Amino acid sequence: MVSHDNIKRLLNPKTLAVIGGREASEVIRQSRKMGFKGTIWAVNPKREELEGIKCFRSIADLPEAPDAAFVAVPRAPAVEVIGDLNRMGAGGAVCYTSGFSETSDGQAYHHTLLDKAGDLPVVGPNCYGLLNYLDGAALWPDHHGGVHVDKGVAIIAQSGNIGISLTMQERSLPLAYMISVGNQALLSISDYIDALCEDDRITAIGLHLEGVENISEFCRAVNKARSKGIPIVALKSGGSDIGAEIALSHTSTLAGSDELYSALFQRIGIARVRTLSEMTETLKLLHVAGPLSGNNISSLSCSGGDAALIADFGSQLGLGFNPIPDVQASQLRKQLGDKVSISNPFDYHTYIWGDIEEKTDCFTRVMQGGYDISLLVLDYPKSDLSEAHEWDIALDAMIAAQRNSGYQAAVLATLPENLPEKARSTLIRNNVVPLQGVEDGLKAISSAAWINAKWKELANHKVSSTVEKFSKIENEIVLLDEARAKSILGKQGIPIPRSKTVSISEAGLTAEQIGFPVVVKAVSAELAHKTEAGGVALNLQDAEEVISAAERMAHLSDKVLVESMITDVVAEVIIGVTRDPQFGLSLVVGSGGIWVELLQDSIPLLLPISRDDVLSALKKLKLYRVLEGYRGQPAGDIDALIDVILSVADFALHNQKTLAEMDLNPVMVLPKGKGVVIADAMIRMAKEERVN
Amino acid sequence: MVSHDNIKRLLNPKTLAVIGGREASEVIRQSRKMGFKGTIWAVNPKREELEGIKCFRSIADLPEAPDAAFVAVPRAPAVEVIGDLNRMGAGGAVCYTSGFSETSDGQAYHHTLLDKAGDLPVVGPNCYGLLNYLDGAALWPDHHGGVHVDKGVAIIAQSGNIGISLTMQERSLPLAYMISVGNQALLSISDYIDALCEDDRITAIGLHLEGVENISEFCRAVNKARSKGIPIVALKSGGSDIGAEIALSHTSTLAGSDELYSALFQRIGIARVRTLSEMTETLKLLHVAGPLSGNNISSLSCSGGDAALIADFGSQLGLGFNPIPDVQASQLRKQLGDKVSISNPFDYHTYIWGDIEEKTDCFTRVMQGGYDISLLVLDYPKSDLSEAHEWDIALDAMIAAQRNSGYQAAVLATLPENLPEKARSTLIRNNVVPLQGVEDGLKAISSAAWINAKWKELANHKVSSTVEKFSKIENEIVLLDEARAKSILGKQGIPIPRSKTVSISEAGLTAEQIGFPVVVKAVSAELAHKTEAGGVALNLQDAEEVISAAERMAHLSDKVLVESMITDVVAEVIIGVTRDPQFGLSLVVGSGGIWVELLQDSIPLLLPISRDDVLSALKKLKLYRVLEGYRGQPAGDIDALIDVILSVADFALHNQKTLAEMDLNPVMVLPKGKGVVIADAMIRMAKEERVN
Repeated sequence: MVSHDNIKRLLNPKTLAVIGGREASEVIRQSRKMGFKGTIWAVNPKREELEGIKCFRSIADLPEAPDAAFVAVPRAPAVEVIGDLNRMGAGGAVCYTSGFSETSDGQAYHHTLLDKAGDLPVVGPNCYGLLNYLDGAALWPDHHGGVHVDKGVAIIAQSGNIGISLTMQERSLPLAYMISVGNQALLSISDYIDALCEDDRITAIGLHLEGVENISEFCRAVNKARSKGIPIVALKSGGSDIGAEIALSHTSTLAGSDELYSALFQRIGIARVRTLSEMTETLKLLHVAGPLSGNNISSLSCSGGDAALIADFGSQLGLGFNPIPDVQASQLRKQLGDKVSISNPFDYHTYIWGDIEEKTDCFTRVMQGGYDISLLVLDYPKSDLSEAHEWDIALDAMIAAQRNSGYQAAVLATLPENLPEKARSTLIRNNVVPLQGVEDGLKAISSAAWINAKWKELANHKVSSTVEKFSKIENEIVLLDEARAKSILGKQGIPIPRSKTVSISEAGLTAEQIGFPVVVKAVSAELAHKTEAGGVALNLQDAEEVISAAERMAHLSDKVLVESMITDVVAEVIIGVTRDPQFGLSLVVGSGGIWVELLQDSIPLLLPISRDDVLSALKKLKLYRVLEGYRGQPAGDIDALIDVILSVADFALHNQKTLAEMDLNPVMVLPKGKGVVIADAMIRMAKEERVN
Repeated sequence: MVSHDNIKRLLNPKTLAVIGGREASEVIRQSRKMGFKGTIWAVNPKREELEGIKCFRSIADLPEAPDAAFVAVPRAPAVEVIGDLNRMGAGGAVCYTSGFSETSDGQAYHHTLLDKAGDLPVVGPNCYGLLNYLDGAALWPDHHGGVHVDKGVAIIAQSGNIGISLTMQERSLPLAYMISVGNQALLSISDYIDALCEDDRITAIGLHLEGVENISEFCRAVNKARSKGIPIVALKSGGSDIGAEIALSHTSTLAGSDELYSALFQRIGIARVRTLSEMTETLKLLHVAGPLSGNNISSLSCSGGDAALIADFGSQLGLGFNPIPDVQASQLRKQLGDKVSISNPFDYHTYIWGDIEEKTDCFTRVMQGGYDISLLVLDYPKSDLSEAHEWDIALDAMIAAQRNSGYQAAVLATLPENLPEKARSTLIRNNVVPLQGVEDGLKAISSAAWINAKWKELANHKVSSTVEKFSKIENEIVLLDEARAKSILGKQGIPIPRSKTVSISEAGLTAEQIGFPVVVKAVSAELAHKTEAGGVALNLQDAEEVISAAERMAHLSDKVLVESMITDVVAEVIIGVTRDPQFGLSLVVGSGGIWVELLQDSIPLLLPISRDDVLSALKKLKLYRVLEGYRGQPAGDIDALIDVILSVADFALHNQKTLAEMDLNPVMVLPKGKGVVIADAMIRMAKEERVN
C-alpha cells in the first residue's frame, strides 16, 4: 500500500535526487529556474558533476533518502534504482524511462518494475514527470511554459505532449501542477486526484485521459475532490473509432467506449470538454468564480452583432437569458435614452463609451438584475494601437460593477486573441473571469453551472455516485432461446406475456387456450434475427391463422412459442445490458422496435442505479414525450417501466459473473396503471452456470 | 441603375473627399497611414483645415467630382451632400451618419436618402465604411488592425463591431477589404460580392450577416463569384430566437428563419461557419490552398495524444483518414523502425526530432500517399523559450515535403495561440496553411472540401442554384377543409384515397361502396386537430362500425369523409409548404405521423427544386433507411414519392400569390411500384382566389 505521506513528499519534495545524464541536468536547470528551495543531489557513476552539482556514484551513497527522485537511465538499471529508492525509504520517484508496457518487448520490465517498486509511489514510467509550480519543483526534463503561482489548477495528462501544449497557453490560466502520468504502472490518475485535492491551494483539476483503469477507484477519488469543493474537468480522447485505435496503440490502457465515459463523467460530476481551449477556459472560470449558482446570464456589448452571437451560442447551450428586471430596466432607460432598447443580451450602444461613471452605473444596474454571471463582450484592439485606454475604462467599469453588485462577472473576447495579457491579469486579480472566444467561453459557463447543479443533486444521495466493479466472464458464452430467456425473466418478476412453447401441431389448440389475438414465433437459440428470417407472425385472430403460420415456420425450428398478442401499446422501449471490457456490465434504455437503430435515441446507465437515475435517463429520451402522453394520446405506465428497469439492473448485478448481454426489445409500455410487458427477449450467458 | 464603373471607383478611389469633422480627420489619418496614393480633399464650412488639408466650404467647390466621398455630418445635411455628390458625378460615398431606417424616427430620412442618392452607390448609412487594404484607401473613421496586402480575402460585415474584431485577428489572415455595410439602403451585400469578385487579387470572401433582403440577387452574385473561382464563407447570426430578436432590433433587415438560410447556403455553395475564429481559419485555408480536392487527410504528430484529438474531431466531421499506402508504409517502417506503428493519424514519435533530412523524408513519404491535405500537428513553445529552432526544423521539413510531393499541406497548433506570427508567415509564403486550433482547423478543411464538391455538383446543372422570388399575399387567408384540400390535390394528379363526403346517415352505405376497411373523419374547416378532437376513426371493418363512428362525430360536424383505409404502408412522410417573410414559399419533407415533432427529422427545400434536389434531401433523412427497405422489410416507392414532392412544388409555384401553408401528413409511402397516397391534407390559402 502506497503511503499518503510518501505521495505528498513526492509531489512537494524538500530533497530531490536526479539520476541520469542529459535529462537529469535539465531537471536541475528547470528546478533552479523555478526557484526550488530544497536540496538537489545528482547521481551518475560516470560523471563528476551535473550543472555544478557533484555526482554521487550511486543511490546508496546519498546522505539520506530523497523525497523525490528523477530517474532517466535505461530500463534495466532504472528498475534497480527504483528498487533501491524503495528500500532506502524515498518519498517517491518519477520514472522518465520508457520501454515498459507500452512496447511489445517491455512486459517483463513492467512486471519487474512493479516488483521492485513495492510501496514506492512512482510517476510513469514513459512520462515527462511532474511540475509543481506552487513550490517550484520541476521533475520534468523538457521545456514547458508555466511560472510560479500561489494557487491555481492542477492538470493530470495522459499525453505528455498535450500537457506541454497546455503549459504554453496564453490565457492566464494559473497552473499549480502539471503531471504527465505515462503508463500509470503504479500511480494512477485516481491517486493523483486523491492526493492533490487535499492541497487547498488547488482550485480545480483538469484531466486529459484516454481511459481509466480502475473505475471504482476513480469515482472514489472524484467524490473526495467534490467533498473538498474541487471541480474536475476532463478532456477524453479516443472518442472516434480511429481515435480509440490510436489511443490503444499509444498506451497500455484500454480506452472504453466513449458513451460510457460520458455516462461516468455525468454520474460523478465531471465536466467533459472537447478541446484544449475549452479545457483552459473552463478551468480558468472555475479558478476565478468556482462552480456557478445557475446558468442564467446577462450579456453586455456595445454592438448588436456581438449580442446576437452570444444569444445564438448561449441558447444552443441552454443558457438562460432572463429579461432585465423592471426596476433596473427603467433605470437603464432613464440613463441611456430611447434609442437604446433594454433587452438581454443587451446592446448598450456606444453613447457612454469612454465614460467610466456612466459605464459603471450601466453595468452595475444590469448585474443587479441578479444573474448567475454577467458578461461584458469586449475585443481589444491590437497591442500596438494607442486607443486601448478606452477599453481599459470598460474593463474597470466591469470590475467596479462586479464589486458593487456582488455577482459574478466575466469579460469575453469574441476572438480568443483579442484579450491581452495585461487585461486578463487585471481581471483575475479583481475576481472577474477573462474568457477568450464565444464558444469556449459560453461552454465554460454552461459547465460551471452544470457542476454546481450536479453537486447539489449528488448531495441529496438519490442518484448514484459510484460505479460497480465487475469481474470478467471465464466460461464459454451461449445464446438462450426466447422461451428460456423469458422464463428466466418471469422468475425475476419481470412481466412477460402468457405463452407456451409447443410443437407445431399443438399451436392451434394452445392459441385457443391462451386467447386471441396471439403471436407465433419460431424457437431456436441459433436464430438471432427471427423477424428477418420469417420466424414471427403477429396479430393472429383464429386457430386457422395460427396453424398456417406455425407450419410456415417448420423449416426454422420444430417448436413454436405461442404468445398472447400485446395490444393497446403506448410506446415500444428497448432495455439492454451490455458488457464492456473496461466498465463491465451496464444498461441502456431507449426507443425500441425498429426505431432503435434509426433514431439512436438511447441513454446508457451505469450500475448501480437508483430510481432517480432511471427517471432522469428516461427524461432525456425523445420518446419521453410519448411516454408522458403525446398529443392527447394516453400516457404510458412510467412507474412500471422504471420497476422493470430496476429489476433488470438487479438481475444483471446478481448474475454479473455469467451475464454477457441482454436485449429486451420491444418492451411494450401500456397505458398508465396497466404495466409493461416484455414482447421479445435475448440473453447471452456463460455456459453451465446456474442463473440465480 | 447603379453603374458598375462607379462602384469600382468607390471601392478603389483615386480621389477622396471627406465631409465632416472628427471622423473626417480620422479618415485622412487612416488613409495616410495605409499609404493612400491618391488625392484627398476636405470639406467643412466651419474649419480652415483638417489634418493639414485646407477645407473647401462645400462639395460644390471641389475641383472635380471625387471617386469616393466619406460623409460624416448629421442626417439632414448628409442627405443633401449625397444628393450633391450624385449630381456632380461622384463615384460613390460612404454614409457614416446614422439615424435612418434603424431608428423609429428615421424612416423619412431613409426615403429622402434613396431619393437624393439616385444612381450613386452608397455604403451605409449607419456603418463604419470600407477599408481597401490592397490600394490603401481607408474610408473608415475608427481603429482597425489590418495592413497592406497584395492579395487577400474580402470581408463584408453587417455588424461593424464584428468587422473591427476580425481586423484584429492574430492569425495572419491577409485582409484585402473590410466593408461595414450598415443599413444597406442602396448597396446590398450582393452588390459588394458582385463587384469584389471581379478583382483577381481577392482570393475568398467572408460574410457576416443577419439576413439577406433580396435572395434571388444574392444567389446571382454568389454564382458569379463561383464562376470566378472565389469561394464564400458566411457567419450568419440570429440563429436562436433570442439572437433573431436582437438582430431584428439592430438593423432593419428581417432575419429569416435559420434553417432556410442553411438551406440557401447549402444550395449555392456557401460554407457556413459558427464563430469568428472558424471564419478566420476557413478563409485562411481557402486563401492559401483554395477549395480542396477532397476530404481525405493525413495527420502527422510526434505524440499519440495529438493524433487521437485529430482522429476524434476529424471523424466527427466526416473527414477520411485513408491508411498510408503500402509502398509508403514500408518505406516508413524501414526509416523509423519497429517501435513506430504506421497508421493514419500517424504518431511518428520523437526519434527523428530535430533532424531536418529524416523529417523531410518521413513527411514526404506520408504526403506521397496522395492525401487531399496533410497536417503536421505542432505547438510551438512560448516565444521567450530558446528551443524554438527545433520547431522551425519541423516547419521547414513540412514545407520541403509539400514542395517534394506537390500535395496540399497545413501545420496545425492544438491551441490557437501556439503558432507564432513568424511561423505563420513563413508557412503562408511557402503555400502551407497555418491552422490554429483543432476544431476550427479541421472544420476549415471540411468546408474547403465541401465547397469544391458542391461546385462540381452545381457545374452539372442537375441541382438548383437559384431561389424563386415570391410576392406577398394580399387577401385574407382561410383554412380549407380536408375534403376540399384533397379534391384540389387530386386535380393536380396527386394521389388521394378513394373517398366521399357525405352526411352522417349516409356513411354506412358509402363505406360499402368504397370497400372495407375504411376511415371516417369529421369534416370541418374549423377543425385543425381532428385526431385530438376525436374526429378520426381508423380501420373500420364493416358498416356497423362505420355508422357508430360517424354518430360519435356528430357533435363535431354534420358531414363526414368516408375514405378507403390505406394499408401495406412502408413509411409515413410529411410534405409541407410554409411561407416565410423573407424566403416566401418553401417545402419541407420529413418523417411523418406522430414522428414529425418527436424526431424533427426533416429537411427544408427551397424552390425551385429538381429531381436531384429532392433525392439528395430524402437521403439526408433518418427515415431514408426505412424507405430503402430496412432490415428485410420491403422498400418504399421512392420514385413515386419524388413525383409527388415535385407536383407539390409545382402546385406551390403556380399558386404562389395565394398559397399560405400546406401540410400533407401522413403521406403513405407504399412498397416499390405501388405509389404513395396522401392520407391527410391541410391547406391554407387566400380567400376568394381561384386555385389554378
